[in-house]
Amino acid sequence: MTRHVDPGLGVCYYPEHWPSELWADDLDRMKEAGLATVRIAEFAWSLMEPTNGDFSSIGWFDDFLDLCAERSMRVIFGTPTATPPVWLQRAHPEILNADRSGQTYDGPRRNYNYNAPAYRYYADRVVEQIARHYGSHLAIVGWQIDNEINCEIDEFYSEGDHLAYREFLRAELGTLEEVNRALGLTFWSRQYSDWSQVRLSGRGLHDAVNPHSLLWEKRFFSHSAVRFARKQVEILRSHVPDSHFITTNGLFGNLNYTELMKAGLDFITFDSYPNFAFDVDRDLAADRLRDRRWSWSLTRTRSISRCFGIMEQQSGAHGWTSRMMGPAPKPGQMRLWTMQSVAHGADFVSYFRWRTAPMGTEIYWHGLNDYSNEPGRKMQEVTRIGQEWAALDDLWGADYQAQVAVVRTYDNVYDSELDTWHGRIERPSDDAVFAACQLSHTPLDFVYLDARSSLEDLERYRLLLVPHLAMMDEAMSELLRAFVEAGGTVVFGARTGYKDSNGLCPMRPMPGLVGQWAGVKVTDFTNLGQREEGLTATWDEQRLPVPVFSEVLEARADDVEVLARFDADYYAGEPALTRRTVGKGQVYYLGACFSEEMVRRLLTETGLVSPLAGLIEAPEGVELAVRRKGERQWLFVLNYQDEPQVLRLPTAYTDLLSGTSEQGEVEVEPYGVRVYAV
Amino acid sequence: MTRHVDPGLGVCYYPEHWPSELWADDLDRMKEAGLATVRIAEFAWSLMEPTNGDFSSIGWFDDFLDLCAERSMRVIFGTPTATPPVWLQRAHPEILNADRSGQTYDGPRRNYNYNAPAYRYYADRVVEQIARHYGSHLAIVGWQIDNEINCEIDEFYSEGDHLAYREFLRAELGTLEEVNRALGLTFWSRQYSDWSQVRLSGRGLHDAVNPHSLLWEKRFFSHSAVRFARKQVEILRSHVPDSHFITTNGLFGNLNYTELMKAGLDFITFDSYPNFAFDVDRDLAADRLRDRRWSWSLTRTRSISRCFGIMEQQSGAHGWTSRMMGPAPKPGQMRLWTMQSVAHGADFVSYFRWRTAPMGTEIYWHGLNDYSNEPGRKMQEVTRIGQEWAALDDLWGADYQAQVAVVRTYDNVYDSELDTWHGRIERPSDDAVFAACQLSHTPLDFVYLDARSSLEDLERYRLLLVPHLAMMDEAMSELLRAFVEAGGTVVFGARTGYKDSNGLCPMRPMPGLVGQWAGVKVTDFTNLGQREEGLTATWDEQRLPVPVFSEVLEARADDVEVLARFDADYYAGEPALTRRTVGKGQVYYLGACFSEEMVRRLLTETGLVSPLAGLIEAPEGVELAVRRKGERQWLFVLNYQDEPQVLRLPTAYTDLLSGTSEQGEVEVEPYGVRVYAV
Amino acid sequence: MTRHVDPGLGVCYYPEHWPSELWADDLDRMKEAGLATVRIAEFAWSLMEPTNGDFSSIGWFDDFLDLCAERSMRVIFGTPTATPPVWLQRAHPEILNADRSGQTYDGPRRNYNYNAPAYRYYADRVVEQIARHYGSHLAIVGWQIDNEINCEIDEFYSEGDHLAYREFLRAELGTLEEVNRALGLTFWSRQYSDWSQVRLSGRGLHDAVNPHSLLWEKRFFSHSAVRFARKQVEILRSHVPDSHFITTNGLFGNLNYTELMKAGLDFITFDSYPNFAFDVDRDLAADRLRDRRWSWSLTRTRSISRCFGIMEQQSGAHGWTSRMMGPAPKPGQMRLWTMQSVAHGADFVSYFRWRTAPMGTEIYWHGLNDYSNEPGRKMQEVTRIGQEWAALDDLWGADYQAQVAVVRTYDNVYDSELDTWHGRIERPSDDAVFAACQLSHTPLDFVYLDARSSLEDLERYRLLLVPHLAMMDEAMSELLRAFVEAGGTVVFGARTGYKDSNGLCPMRPMPGLVGQWAGVKVTDFTNLGQREEGLTATWDEQRLPVPVFSEVLEARADDVEVLARFDADYYAGEPALTRRTVGKGQVYYLGACFSEEMVRRLLTETGLVSPLAGLIEAPEGVELAVRRKGERQWLFVLNYQDEPQVLRLPTAYTDLLSGTSEQGEVEVEPYGVRVYAV
Repeated sequence: MTRHVDPGLGVCYYPEHWPSELWADDLDRMKEAGLATVRIAEFAWSLMEPTNGDFSSIGWFDDFLDLCAERSMRVIFGTPTATPPVWLQRAHPEILNADRSGQTYDGPRRNYNYNAPAYRYYADRVVEQIARHYGSHLAIVGWQIDNEINCEIDEFYSEGDHLAYREFLRAELGTLEEVNRALGLTFWSRQYSDWSQVRLSGRGLHDAVNPHSLLWEKRFFSHSAVRFARKQVEILRSHVPDSHFITTNGLFGNLNYTELMKAGLDFITFDSYPNFAFDVDRDLAADRLRDRRWSWSLTRTRSISRCFGIMEQQSGAHGWTSRMMGPAPKPGQMRLWTMQSVAHGADFVSYFRWRTAPMGTEIYWHGLNDYSNEPGRKMQEVTRIGQEWAALDDLWGADYQAQVAVVRTYDNVYDSELDTWHGRIERPSDDAVFAACQLSHTPLDFVYLDARSSLEDLERYRLLLVPHLAMMDEAMSELLRAFVEAGGTVVFGARTGYKDSNGLCPMRPMPGLVGQWAGVKVTDFTNLGQREEGLTATWDEQRLPVPVFSEVLEARADDVEVLARFDADYYAGEPALTRRTVGKGQVYYLGACFSEEMVRRLLTETGLVSPLAGLIEAPEGVELAVRRKGERQWLFVLNYQDEPQVLRLPTAYTDLLSGTSEQGEVEVEPYGVRVYAV
Repeated sequence: MTRHVDPGLGVCYYPEHWPSELWADDLDRMKEAGLATVRIAEFAWSLMEPTNGDFSSIGWFDDFLDLCAERSMRVIFGTPTATPPVWLQRAHPEILNADRSGQTYDGPRRNYNYNAPAYRYYADRVVEQIARHYGSHLAIVGWQIDNEINCEIDEFYSEGDHLAYREFLRAELGTLEEVNRALGLTFWSRQYSDWSQVRLSGRGLHDAVNPHSLLWEKRFFSHSAVRFARKQVEILRSHVPDSHFITTNGLFGNLNYTELMKAGLDFITFDSYPNFAFDVDRDLAADRLRDRRWSWSLTRTRSISRCFGIMEQQSGAHGWTSRMMGPAPKPGQMRLWTMQSVAHGADFVSYFRWRTAPMGTEIYWHGLNDYSNEPGRKMQEVTRIGQEWAALDDLWGADYQAQVAVVRTYDNVYDSELDTWHGRIERPSDDAVFAACQLSHTPLDFVYLDARSSLEDLERYRLLLVPHLAMMDEAMSELLRAFVEAGGTVVFGARTGYKDSNGLCPMRPMPGLVGQWAGVKVTDFTNLGQREEGLTATWDEQRLPVPVFSEVLEARADDVEVLARFDADYYAGEPALTRRTVGKGQVYYLGACFSEEMVRRLLTETGLVSPLAGLIEAPEGVELAVRRKGERQWLFVLNYQDEPQVLRLPTAYTDLLSGTSEQGEVEVEPYGVRVYAV
Repeated sequence: MTRHVDPGLGVCYYPEHWPSELWADDLDRMKEAGLATVRIAEFAWSLMEPTNGDFSSIGWFDDFLDLCAERSMRVIFGTPTATPPVWLQRAHPEILNADRSGQTYDGPRRNYNYNAPAYRYYADRVVEQIARHYGSHLAIVGWQIDNEINCEIDEFYSEGDHLAYREFLRAELGTLEEVNRALGLTFWSRQYSDWSQVRLSGRGLHDAVNPHSLLWEKRFFSHSAVRFARKQVEILRSHVPDSHFITTNGLFGNLNYTELMKAGLDFITFDSYPNFAFDVDRDLAADRLRDRRWSWSLTRTRSISRCFGIMEQQSGAHGWTSRMMGPAPKPGQMRLWTMQSVAHGADFVSYFRWRTAPMGTEIYWHGLNDYSNEPGRKMQEVTRIGQEWAALDDLWGADYQAQVAVVRTYDNVYDSELDTWHGRIERPSDDAVFAACQLSHTPLDFVYLDARSSLEDLERYRLLLVPHLAMMDEAMSELLRAFVEAGGTVVFGARTGYKDSNGLCPMRPMPGLVGQWAGVKVTDFTNLGQREEGLTATWDEQRLPVPVFSEVLEARADDVEVLARFDADYYAGEPALTRRTVGKGQVYYLGACFSEEMVRRLLTETGLVSPLAGLIEAPEGVELAVRRKGERQWLFVLNYQDEPQVLRLPTAYTDLLSGTSEQGEVEVEPYGVRVYAV
């Protein structure tokens, strides 16, 4: 059966942090504010199993759940495996994660590894006990697996991981000969001659590591986490009603969400904290997009589940006692950020948290209520959101509209993290694409491709930006070619296809397989240093920045147009950007990183820039987004600025939040939001 | 019996660093220069016990002491426990300190922990042997326990510390239930279910630590050091004459000096190195107060002993071979810094060191004599100080005069170190108070409160500044209220009283207990980010900076005056500073960090600014201080500048140092000093 | 027999990285390009001994060598000990190097230590097997020991090192008493009472270490590496023809090359990567000399072997996947850098590498050919170099001409690395000397002195710059005095001679022994902080910077001239620079660090500046160098700039590279080179 996210507002709550006398009042006030769902229990292992195998208090949350049921509050129950109890850690120190040098992490959270047999045994057992005990409780509607899988750390080097990695490689690659080949171990004499020698990378001098090993290690870290989650899903599914959904929360590293979803999750939820943009340690001047940058993460979230949830939506100042310090959100920002989530596809938004923790590392992760429990402006603001939420009733399930997508693969993401040459070109291009699309009001999606991807996955788009897929296999090249032949447009960036699926560099002209049908060859290439900053290429008399990396191109066929040529250095006048018509579509190849100006020009050239221009005129300071369901469309206007922004509406639209009709010149207040039915 | 610091000048000397043939000449030249006291032996364990239990050379210093006795040189003998010998370290590696990850420290100094049974056994034994052997030597007048307790590192995570911490918590908290409650271990599932699980914090991801545990750990580190010192005091007291004083040197972290004094110390001594202000790695431009900032530390020292000693007073360039590099003090600076110490309450000043070490890590910690042993300008300068010292004969025992004090508690100091939110507000307020008082010539004291404090401890003051006591219990609130009722003035800063004595945040309106009698409530609060820099509040048309943190206040009673209101942000116009009359006194509450301008305004408002204005007119570039004994007063003028400073004296005063009478406009030379009898 | 470096061009090649089908083609193309030598095998241990003791594939390179022999390609065979195989590392983890805290390094390269008995056994065995098998192959002309000894890390703290250090100290110092004395262990109670206590330094708090111990440890690290190399030389020599040369490559730390040469090397080779000057992480603006700075390293290389080889000469962009990112060299730079090497004494230049690695950490260390193996501009450039090389046929063996030398000793180099006070004066003076000589076209040599040095080693020079030899023993002082008496000039810089050969500071006036014959005494001294930046001294009305450190001098004899006096601070007017005639020569003493202006003035004063001015007029932007053989001279002109530089030739010279005659005003193109027969 397909289970969707339940639309609504919710809140994260920790009954164990206060006397039970407070619970009923807390729940009543949640209801009043429009918060109908409550997430609990994800850090409460030691309450339900205070010593090894003692499950006499497994029902610790029963009374609380009964109070919820009485009030028709819906409960999301978290499996508590993100914080193993101290008794387990002391009895089985091998459950602790370790760094590459073998030193273990202790400390209060996410200190475990996924491969210690003891951890897997105890985690499975407590999840099973919980599923058995709570599975049938009426208040519960769904489950959260663990909490923020791979948050804080996404690398695992405990002894259990070394052993599991060995088995993983054996299963994936079969023979030691293939391991030696695939991991390039001839280099520097690192071949294995016996399976017992296989281990994850150790601490190298100056952190030197074989990149192909590291690629496989990242795949292994993801695999371990996915297997860990899958096991919990299986246990839950065998005990809880079919109607209950199962999800997990947050987006983190070394984790392939395509695979994670296949482990049995019904949808993904994200934890959205845009206030990090204003943390006191962040250089505010360095990023004009600030909290708007969270739309990038929401776009990633949507690539996993078109409609999704926000399990933790920021509701106050944030910080730990040990680090991080964000100011209190300004009045209006919580509402703005809530609607930012909704605009991008969230149908469920749950605030973190009901009341600021009175103890522990997170006493500065402020909730809707402060320590004092006296109602203040945050409760007023959430109550307003609760009231407005009702006006969006028809919206749920509507789909975010984008014609342009960025193509990514997890392998390339991993590679750009482990390989600084790859990473240094990936990040500026990502920034350029995001800024160009945001500021020109051109909605954007991500598409994560893998071996199972098909043309269907791409059909909704007209333009695919493929910044720097260093690893590109034949299937992917052919898929993109088919997309073009069918009428689509693809833009490749520099360094496409110079690696194979292990990150080895095969003997063939760059840009590898796509070069053949894009009709280009790279004849020279270089990264740009400080001397070459400001390099441009000229396209029809427009000088466009081509930063960070240069590939000097050569057209391999007569029908390849050279659109832009480099303006300087020893390759001045050489081709920097080409275009070729292939079938009904077109393929561009850019021998550089993307700049914001270049992306804008490409959007213009392809006629896909600012698709909402007919619906609304809006300044760069606001974000626009559209969700559509059948014939109905909702147009979101999000003002991230602390100053009013002026829109121009060609015709009268009703703002669903206020219920008022607006037309012509409309001033949107600081942090203001509109949801127009259009 | 009460033992006071012996007034005089002294010097630190290491007989073991040179052939014994040099000793007599060195001592003769000390006497000549006016240095009558010599500290020895604090790093000489391996000379007195070269192998385990071999005390045949325990009398290694006998000959040297005899030479001292012949010349009536007074000797302070150091127990040598700061540098355990290598044989002990090799035989008992468990005596080494370890970091939070469990890795031990080796290395040349302060590498041990206070809780290894072996260390305690061997340290006690060598101290006992020393006390027995040297206790009755005529040359000795006093003892120094260890050396710079908690210098270099003040955290201890060896296995012995883990075990001792367990016993400490059991003694302090009694039951595991109370441990779990007091340390907030419900958060993130960290409850203990058996005493054997209790350990100090381990290495967490991103250094995350439970703050309440860390608070108790800091208390434990202090407790361990105090117990270690107490044991040495007990051993010494049972063997040395009653007349001998016992002290230790320096001010360091995680050490409660109130408790340390109760271990049996007669007074404290400080190690004063103001030349650190000019270290080549220090950003000179960042601190206009430079060497003058050492008056802050001298103020802390005075809070422990009204009259105290300087065991190590800088006499040359400083540095280790591995780090630190200070230039040679300019001519006059050694004299200036000596008088800075005296002005603040030092009756004894001992220079570090007689001659620069010819070997080891400290070959750049320059002494009065250089390697060459040829007399130079430093010996000339100290000889001048020795001659001037005689003119101060009546001064000793005179009390530093201050009407204003800053209130502190060790728990709050610890909390501000472990909790970045607390620390970030503490430091700028400290700086503002110090600068405002220094530059306005308003003498300042510190008062460290604890559960045993009484109104008597506060009676000498008219104004108490209480910047940010996050932890404030009922007793302290009541004590401060009594102070106000009796006619005093108290100024609280933001974040007062939001934590209990474990650092947990109770459910009550801020600012907690003092809010009731100060008549205020905090209705909203936020730290300030970069966007909010420059925030001010207006007090009678004067715009005063209110940096770092804002608490929006609400007056809770009619008799509460709102003195200043915020000028900007969403709480513009809301109260920032209130005042209320309580009994015969007044209480202010400032919903912000202190700025220098705010402190100056408060000092002016309370009529306590510049109390010496009638005695002298002085520019900001000099520091003024007064010590008083009975009817007699000594006025110190300290010129830290490399340019002359001009004073104006209303009447003729005699400068005791030069013996000349001065009146009217007086130019004080660069680095110059005056001690006027007034 | 004396074995010289074989003149010629070569290339580094890894047959194991590609199918054997490619080898013949690769070799043919090398020959075509003029690359007649090929280095192989230095990372191929696991191919030749895939499991413990299995030497059945010891002949892995036979076929390749046969292909070389057929083409008369000369082969340099590397012993593969820089990358021990994984089977060895797993079977004997004690072979791994460790840091000071005892944590081992794993990771792909140079992860071993020189003192583990197991490593020495296995390394010797594989070298012996290789020597036996390949020693008589016709293609082989020479051997490379290991690869880049002490590269990446030059400190070793494994258990094997601790034990070997103990034996080293026993051999060098004889008794524990002498160890305690020489290492200054009285300081901080660190005396040993039993040999079993002796270990290398452990991890100290704030990295504090006894500097004398560290000096001995550095000597020990060098000793260990030299012993390791010597053993390989011995094994090779007992199996390979006498005509084969033995060398090793690169210049690295904690390695005394004077001693290393005595281990039996025939000459040294350097690995020259000037493109690091343009790495994206390097602050370009911070160093105007950029790639020209590699002439400093080539000067060091020449001090070891007057004529030497370049085993690895940069041929493309550089980088690892984990760090480092250099742009592609501009057209012409590879040729420029090749000729920079030749100008300084290289007779053999081997490019790194034939083709970019298709796998491993170094996929971005680009070779002459890219992954694609399609010929490009780099192959064109090297082919041009190959053609020009023939015109230099008579040059080989010609000697670089310099009248000025900088005097160094390994002990002082070590001391300046371990002692920050020493290092902070060493580096700015080095920079000043280098810049002054480079920009004034004054060729420079280095002379490394030790106990075996004699006047002969100095006779070729007229001026010795002796910047800051803190450690100066009587023999060296007397040697330099003899040099002066014979007519030479010596300039000492500040801090000369304040340490003995253990780094202890003896009781004598500074500047120690040389002060007696230089006729000066240091009466006061200080490092300069930020307040004293810009200090100058005046010499005949010229104000010359005297940075970083000041020694106030006193002339000790009537015949000592005071040339310059300090202009500011409390020692304004005191002597800063003195000169004295001793025998037929002169000795200068500068009580400061060298500034570029001061070095230029000293070169002018001694008449040694710009000795080539009669041959050529050249701007600062180019480097000039002369090599001479008998009556013949070759004048090198190297243009490092990206702009043309104009020379003026007084008469017609033939540029050997182009075969054209030039005279008068000559424009040298960007990155251009001339080799004039003059």
